[in-house]
Amino acid sequence: MSFRQVTIVGTGLLGASFGLALKQHQLASHIVGVGGAAPGALHIGAIDEIAGLPSSLPASDLVLLAQPIQRLLSTLEQLDEHLSPTALVTDVGSTKSEICRVAAQHIRRANFVGGHPMAGKEQRGPQAASAALFAGCTWVLTAHEPRLEQLIQTLGAHPLILGPVAHDRLVAQSSHLPQLLSTALASYLEGSGAERVSGPGLRDMTRLALSNYELWEDIIATNRDNIDAALSGLIAHLESLRQSGFQNAFPTAQSFANKIPRDV
Amino acid sequence: MSFRQVTIVGTGLLGASFGLALKQHQLASHIVGVGGAAPGALHIGAIDEIAGLPSSLPASDLVLLAQPIQRLLSTLEQLDEHLSPTALVTDVGSTKSEICRVAAQHIRRANFVGGHPMAGKEQRGPQAASAALFAGCTWVLTAHEPRLEQLIQTLGAHPLILGPVAHDRLVAQSSHLPQLLSTALASYLEGSGAERVSGPGLRDMTRLALSNYELWEDIIATNRDNIDAALSGLIAHLESLRQSGFQNAFPTAQSFANKIPRDV
Repeated sequence: MSFRQVTIVGTGLLGASFGLALKQHQLASHIVGVGGAAPGALHIGAIDEIAGLPSSLPASDLVLLAQPIQRLLSTLEQLDEHLSPTALVTDVGSTKSEICRVAAQHIRRANFVGGHPMAGKEQRGPQAASAALFAGCTWVLTAHEPRLEQLIQTLGAHPLILGPVAHDRLVAQSSHLPQLLSTALASYLEGSGAERVSGPGLRDMTRLALSNYELWEDIIATNRDNIDAALSGLIAHLESLRQSGFQNAFPTAQSFANKIPRDV
Repeated sequence: MSFRQVTIVGTGLLGASFGLALKQHQLASHIVGVGGAAPGALHIGAIDEIAGLPSSLPASDLVLLAQPIQRLLSTLEQLDEHLSPTALVTDVGSTKSEICRVAAQHIRRANFVGGHPMAGKEQRGPQAASAALFAGCTWVLTAHEPRLEQLIQTLGAHPLILGPVAHDRLVAQSSHLPQLLSTALASYLEGSGAERVSGPGLRDMTRLALSNYELWEDIIATNRDNIDAALSGLIAHLESLRQSGFQNAFPTAQSFANKIPRDV
């Protein structure tokens, strides 16, 4: 399985890493990059060519959208008439309901399947990209698509089919809640002097707090209800533990923490 | 600066790592280990000899107490009559007020200075020990003690003089709060299925949740008021962010997170 021409719209950390990974595994004959970060992606060899949006689409058999969510939504509205009817369109957005809703409305000629690789780091841009970024990670697809599933497996990632509603509810808990908790903890501690006695625990628990709001603004805006439910639930849980003690929470927490892969 | 004989009471992760580090830097001619984990510590070369508690004390010029806090408190009550008047006694307990209070009551012949190396990991026991465990870490001392400060620096750590009350208030925020937050998050997510879509963020935020309650029971019991204040403050902060949005918290959180060393 390999693609003739791939267009990557948005060549930041994820888009450029996807380009590097395609090249490493020889999955694409030609990769076109679109967007402001395309020169950086070209420089590191993640793409072969820079182009504007519509021009590269008719000849592409795979289109990956890797922009911030709001821009990705507006891109989705403009693609359809330029796509080849055999093209496969996917994305790497961190929320899926809104993206899949807009895609269902606007992508008619080609096949759209939403995607979300559970990979990333707090650095941004093609300069932080790596061909190995997706190795070992879970890569959600919103529907079965054999070519995409094979592609994901070739990159060393694990495809997981999950509808957009179930996806957004789960990532509110597994990804958005940890981010907001880290941000809340670090902003709570600012000015306390706690950094004077910091150890490895505080380092881990504040790594996500290095993230930019710009990256999270769209995620929060497109998953508001699930995030609010997760936050409300956690706050109630914390308050109950504060009052009744953490003794029973430790073994339950260990049981959950032991399910999370730690050698990735 | 080097010690003739060092007694390490409690040779788990911290005690055995201390023995390995002393040997690596040739800071002790002879190291005696006391306690149930001493055979494991002898096996990895962290100590030279296993002994019972009183017998090794008269000849020791440095005594390190590295037991769990409650046992450490009862050890403190039994040491004094066996100590050399020139001996230096210190500890690695994670809270300091209660330990320093009991030490002030019971250690009369020798010099006691409380200590807390801000190092550790979720594994326990001498089998997890490492001579490099303290490299780069902050090591709190509850009072100036030139020999101890030099020893700590030789091990590659950074001594920080902090009274027991200030220490306990700060570590409630920098260490105990992150631990309890990680435990709360992981216990909240148990049964949710969130582990199906876990990424690097959830992995970091649940690492501390692997810790055992036995390790934390004494810490919580000896720093209850500070921990309760930190938890209450964070819960109120989280609830306020949930209601008003996280936009302003992100830059504040980044500012704090950037003060935490990340290459240790």
